[in-house]
Amino acid sequence: MPTVDLNSDIAEGFGAYTCGDDEAMLGIVTSCNVACGFHAGDPEIMARTFASAKEKGVACGAHPGFPDLWGFGRRRIPFSTGEIERLVAYQVGAAQALATYAGTKITYVKCHGALGNLCEVDRPAAEAVGRAIKAVDPNLVWLTIAAGEQVRAAETIGLTGVAEIFADRGYTEEGHLIPRGQPGAMILDPDEAAARMVQMVQEGAIITARGKRIPTAIGSICVHGDSAHAVESARRVRAGLEAAGVRVRAFAAG
Amino acid sequence: MPTVDLNSDIAEGFGAYTCGDDEAMLGIVTSCNVACGFHAGDPEIMARTFASAKEKGVACGAHPGFPDLWGFGRRRIPFSTGEIERLVAYQVGAAQALATYAGTKITYVKCHGALGNLCEVDRPAAEAVGRAIKAVDPNLVWLTIAAGEQVRAAETIGLTGVAEIFADRGYTEEGHLIPRGQPGAMILDPDEAAARMVQMVQEGAIITARGKRIPTAIGSICVHGDSAHAVESARRVRAGLEAAGVRVRAFAAG
Amino acid sequence: MPTVDLNSDIAEGFGAYTCGDDEAMLGIVTSCNVACGFHAGDPEIMARTFASAKEKGVACGAHPGFPDLWGFGRRRIPFSTGEIERLVAYQVGAAQALATYAGTKITYVKCHGALGNLCEVDRPAAEAVGRAIKAVDPNLVWLTIAAGEQVRAAETIGLTGVAEIFADRGYTEEGHLIPRGQPGAMILDPDEAAARMVQMVQEGAIITARGKRIPTAIGSICVHGDSAHAVESARRVRAGLEAAGVRVRAFAAG
Amino acid sequence: MPTVDLNSDIAEGFGAYTCGDDEAMLGIVTSCNVACGFHAGDPEIMARTFASAKEKGVACGAHPGFPDLWGFGRRRIPFSTGEIERLVAYQVGAAQALATYAGTKITYVKCHGALGNLCEVDRPAAEAVGRAIKAVDPNLVWLTIAAGEQVRAAETIGLTGVAEIFADRGYTEEGHLIPRGQPGAMILDPDEAAARMVQMVQEGAIITARGKRIPTAIGSICVHGDSAHAVESARRVRAGLEAAGVRVRAFAAG
Repeated sequence: MPTVDLNSDIAEGFGAYTCGDDEAMLGIVTSCNVACGFHAGDPEIMARTFASAKEKGVACGAHPGFPDLWGFGRRRIPFSTGEIERLVAYQVGAAQALATYAGTKITYVKCHGALGNLCEVDRPAAEAVGRAIKAVDPNLVWLTIAAGEQVRAAETIGLTGVAEIFADRGYTEEGHLIPRGQPGAMILDPDEAAARMVQMVQEGAIITARGKRIPTAIGSICVHGDSAHAVESARRVRAGLEAAGVRVRAFAAG
Repeated sequence: MPTVDLNSDIAEGFGAYTCGDDEAMLGIVTSCNVACGFHAGDPEIMARTFASAKEKGVACGAHPGFPDLWGFGRRRIPFSTGEIERLVAYQVGAAQALATYAGTKITYVKCHGALGNLCEVDRPAAEAVGRAIKAVDPNLVWLTIAAGEQVRAAETIGLTGVAEIFADRGYTEEGHLIPRGQPGAMILDPDEAAARMVQMVQEGAIITARGKRIPTAIGSICVHGDSAHAVESARRVRAGLEAAGVRVRAFAAG
Repeated sequence: MPTVDLNSDIAEGFGAYTCGDDEAMLGIVTSCNVACGFHAGDPEIMARTFASAKEKGVACGAHPGFPDLWGFGRRRIPFSTGEIERLVAYQVGAAQALATYAGTKITYVKCHGALGNLCEVDRPAAEAVGRAIKAVDPNLVWLTIAAGEQVRAAETIGLTGVAEIFADRGYTEEGHLIPRGQPGAMILDPDEAAARMVQMVQEGAIITARGKRIPTAIGSICVHGDSAHAVESARRVRAGLEAAGVRVRAFAAG
Repeated sequence: MPTVDLNSDIAEGFGAYTCGDDEAMLGIVTSCNVACGFHAGDPEIMARTFASAKEKGVACGAHPGFPDLWGFGRRRIPFSTGEIERLVAYQVGAAQALATYAGTKITYVKCHGALGNLCEVDRPAAEAVGRAIKAVDPNLVWLTIAAGEQVRAAETIGLTGVAEIFADRGYTEEGHLIPRGQPGAMILDPDEAAARMVQMVQEGAIITARGKRIPTAIGSICVHGDSAHAVESARRVRAGLEAAGVRVRAFAAG
């Protein structure tokens, strides 16, 4: 019986600002990537989210990003690899403490936004993130974008890597995300998205726009939390997986 | 042979901004209170300071403050006790991670500025800090202002408390700091300061402005890092203690 | 024919975060209080809002608050009166520039959140705000909470003050807002709110919980922008005013 | 009699953090570039600096930078040209208001750090800055790096541009600054710097590393405020200029 994790970014509010329906999403996903206060999130929503995830049996990961609240972590700020190491370590530590405070723990780390995109293509940046994770806690799993530099960096550094695919995105012939704005970049129909995910998980391969299979160990599926209809889409992706006999389960329970 | 710790606030720069001579101070004190990025400090100076403290054999503590870089943590921002818990937990976690990253660890927590002053007089705030420390790691020592509410909160909550006195400050008949601006508030001559510290440590008592003895378990002496002549004063306080046969040693080595 | 202005806080998003339905609100009110980037808002939303307000013929004011994005300007941070002067002047200047950039101008200033609440009861703080406004541009109108210290400060300092009442709030026998959480604090039914506003505007008086009339020059009515049903409530308040023959018009058109 | 302005970055402290000796520098330069709170500076130091500059007869300019206090405005954050327009307009407005508050006014704008470096080579970014200045106040002078894209953008947009050269930097054969780290990048001896400046001002040309003359309208000389020995260097550059018969005077007095 094929098994896969379902993850979503979460706790991306800040102070009085809200972002998405976290409670609903926690009722659907098996892992949640908790923002750590640099690009979104604050100690209040972090603690609250960890407590809610614990109650609902959802695994928790730290979701570090660039220190850019204004840009929601989507601006590629030119930090050195050393700076990336330290700003990731800082955020992972903050998440560990607030998870512990809430009676649970984080089991993995996933990079957010521009930091994640950078690490998909830039090996030194990816290795900086990996070194930070390993230095803080070598037992943390690294949730990486499938087929990117983080996958290889995890091997080099000696961390357990789990690769994710995106429910709502199309893939190039090289196994990368088709850039937003290009034809086939977005899979807007959740049922189609679910069907694609079932296929990829069952075949253990990324299926490209032209139908090519790229064998890949797929450990998780990312459903986005802040787009319109996010919750409904996530629900249908999960339902589609389960209807097809795919078991949805966290790769690293807390 | 009487023993006491010598602590100083440190790593209070931010980005391009510097604050005090951290390297010189690390050559004098036995414990350093590392700012955690809310009122001062950033991941870079935190990691650098932890590494340097490790090399010099100086014990490290987290030094959380209010999120107020503009006010250097000196403004008493009206947070709820719940918010205080979470913002302290966050900062302690960040410090733990960067200490681990630098190959060392934090062994204690001390509140900074307005947060420390609040906790000296406000039991609920003090207990909020204590709960945060205990939740994150109950083995952390709580470095508290002697004779204040943190001392009692540490007992209530079940944390090891170590009380500090200030080298450069006079004490009221109740054992509290004479407020700045009042006569006798500041002890500007380091040799006088050292002589006072020797006396208090040897007698195990706070000596008030009128000479009254208030028996107190004195575990540490705070020398300030950001005033003019801070380094020279700290050096003379330490020399005075050692010349009088007081052993200067960290209360909780890393 | 009695005339009154209808104002609302606006442009309170930040980066990717949204807050309320600004475009809908700009179709209803005659004056909009534009957040200036300290408690909410950023240069992008400020410019966009000024442009939209111009297009819709809505008068614009600067809406300065405490520098507290995390607290949405609702924490009473203990700034000195001098600091209040400078932080208000800074924000008013930023708003002036972005209004000019967008082809319009600000005609008034209204304090946000904790700064406004402080100025309602604290004369020195209110005068600090008044001095800042006067120093930057003495032609700016000061939109003040009716019956509070800002009204008197405006006179002392020599600024044109316009007093506002709140559509959704009850009033004490002294003419102040009944504190939230107390009986009668909130008027939740928009039709009742509209009827009350019509009465107060027609009688030129604040009507208290017990029905007492406190003669007051009422220049504006504040409808809140960030509560649930805010737009619908504002629409019904305006409709109620117009149906009763009250003319709704900006007190200081751009 | 040749005339030139002498400018320096100033007011680059933040809260409790200081940066350079502003008062001494204000006794030497004829124009000061006041940081606006995004990369450095805050309303307090801005108001204080404007007041002191007024007293000393020093012309004032706004010195906008990227919103990057942690990086002191030295990180090239990928903002769109539209965002650059708005963040420059915001900062110019804040500076205008605090100058007015302090009884003086700004007469020019100069970009800081990474924003300035970007605008030296990137025409769209330079034009975005120019559009922002023009929109806020077309009478403001634009203090630009000689021979860069800002010079041309000022012409296109219709702003008065004044070009500056750097006292402590060497120039390439194309008239650009030799990048830091390359031979000849820094002119460390202030007397040599002064002699070079005298020559360039007298000849109306940038003199390159190989001695080539590039005719340039030189309106100002930048002396850096935050390097070691900054004040002494600035003093000797000014003394050298005056000894050689060059008149040192602001290009746009307040």
